[in-house]
Amino acid sequence: MRTLSRNRAFGGVQGVHAHPSKVCDCEMTFGLFLPEEAEHGPVPLLWYLSGLTCTHENAMVKAGLQQWAAEWGLAVVFPDTSPRGSEVPDDPSYDLGQGAGFYVDATEAPWSSHFRMWSYLTEELPRVLTANFEIDELRQSIMGHSMGGHGALTLAMHHPDRFAAVSAFAPIANPTESDWGRKQFAAYLGEDEAAWRLHDASILMAERGFPGPVLIDQGTEDEFLELLRPEALASAMAARRQPGAFRMHRGYDHSYFFISSFAEEHVAFHAEALWGAEA
Amino acid sequence: MRTLSRNRAFGGVQGVHAHPSKVCDCEMTFGLFLPEEAEHGPVPLLWYLSGLTCTHENAMVKAGLQQWAAEWGLAVVFPDTSPRGSEVPDDPSYDLGQGAGFYVDATEAPWSSHFRMWSYLTEELPRVLTANFEIDELRQSIMGHSMGGHGALTLAMHHPDRFAAVSAFAPIANPTESDWGRKQFAAYLGEDEAAWRLHDASILMAERGFPGPVLIDQGTEDEFLELLRPEALASAMAARRQPGAFRMHRGYDHSYFFISSFAEEHVAFHAEALWGAEA
Repeated sequence: MRTLSRNRAFGGVQGVHAHPSKVCDCEMTFGLFLPEEAEHGPVPLLWYLSGLTCTHENAMVKAGLQQWAAEWGLAVVFPDTSPRGSEVPDDPSYDLGQGAGFYVDATEAPWSSHFRMWSYLTEELPRVLTANFEIDELRQSIMGHSMGGHGALTLAMHHPDRFAAVSAFAPIANPTESDWGRKQFAAYLGEDEAAWRLHDASILMAERGFPGPVLIDQGTEDEFLELLRPEALASAMAARRQPGAFRMHRGYDHSYFFISSFAEEHVAFHAEALWGAEA
Repeated sequence: MRTLSRNRAFGGVQGVHAHPSKVCDCEMTFGLFLPEEAEHGPVPLLWYLSGLTCTHENAMVKAGLQQWAAEWGLAVVFPDTSPRGSEVPDDPSYDLGQGAGFYVDATEAPWSSHFRMWSYLTEELPRVLTANFEIDELRQSIMGHSMGGHGALTLAMHHPDRFAAVSAFAPIANPTESDWGRKQFAAYLGEDEAAWRLHDASILMAERGFPGPVLIDQGTEDEFLELLRPEALASAMAARRQPGAFRMHRGYDHSYFFISSFAEEHVAFHAEALWGAEA
């Protein structure tokens, strides 16, 4: 692992690090905020998964999470959204290939050689983090935005023992019924739609739910509402009696201004789940 | 004036607007955050001046000021750092020409035709703001970073009746003695150094001071300390008995992570000066 940058922030350190990834067969870059408490011992970890076209950097500089993570003593990791590099397959469209990994393990050519974000996030990157930083692997929580909200919800529902809570801003909530999903699942996972269902948050919510709390925030002026299909997830949450909240915010759109506006509440939500009665 | 974007943020609106500028003889773009209170009447205005290479956008998306402005009911304007466009003179270096207006009115060719940021910020942009938005022109305050800290301090000390307070992150504090200053003043203002002294915050502090409070934050790991010369300003502030604070923060550098780490305190500092006993 090599460190690309370190900036003091909110009493802690915002770092950017790169490491060779066996799973993705390329170098992967991530951002990691460590609060001051990490100088003295392991701290809980909040995963932040980003949306289409993003790298590790967008949320790291625009979402405004670090200040609240510092207040609660949490680390925040900002992974990239796909494998990268000239050796890695790509597509001219913004919503397939590099920057659009969709948090699945691709099984189809040409993608299957590198596009294994599911295994990268569940197996390889956790090992890199715990080996190199003061991270308490028994205390993890997860959130994301748009494609990253899809990733956070599906990862959490498949790993209910790993994450204390899950939250999402404007998640791609029902990708098996959306052009943000069908195109990518067909490319990455093939034509058998049974495999797609394991990566649809609304279906997983209906079939499994999540043992911890779930927080979903959506803006009424989101320019991608038709693609996100929040109604499918809201309906599934209510039908399942899922503990948590689905909130619709008047006037907010799909941008980082929406995320930063509610960042404090999301971090507090995770911190309370992570710290439990200590909070 | 035309509106390029509007995003709901922290209960208010983050807008980006462009207008034809007579002073700069080109179209100028600015960001303006309006808190929810502006829906009901005029609100105080905080000016944020950015540093070298920045446009209106950098601080708007990275400094984390809006959340605190929303809390205190302040508008924040993010002007560009220079005139822009293919008709506007430029220089291949990053620290002269477009993106590097240095907040002066150039008197020398080829710059004098467009590079009039001093008059733009003191005369033209205030008129645009008060004509189009619910801004209380009797309640203004000003802050900035690096070159923008230089701008904020020099503008404030020349307009002591206009600004309730002034603050700066890592300002170019003594440009007449720095390569961030001598090069630009020679280009924009000519060889007579008497003109330069009117745009040097440390000299102005020694000669005039500021009637309101002054807050300066500087990081010990700032990669540009030799160019910023904070010691000149700290010395002048102390010698003048200037009410305010000069703070040196261990480990912080020149980045937006430094700014966002102390954004809350800077906005509160201005809000208290603007709202006075109401705060």
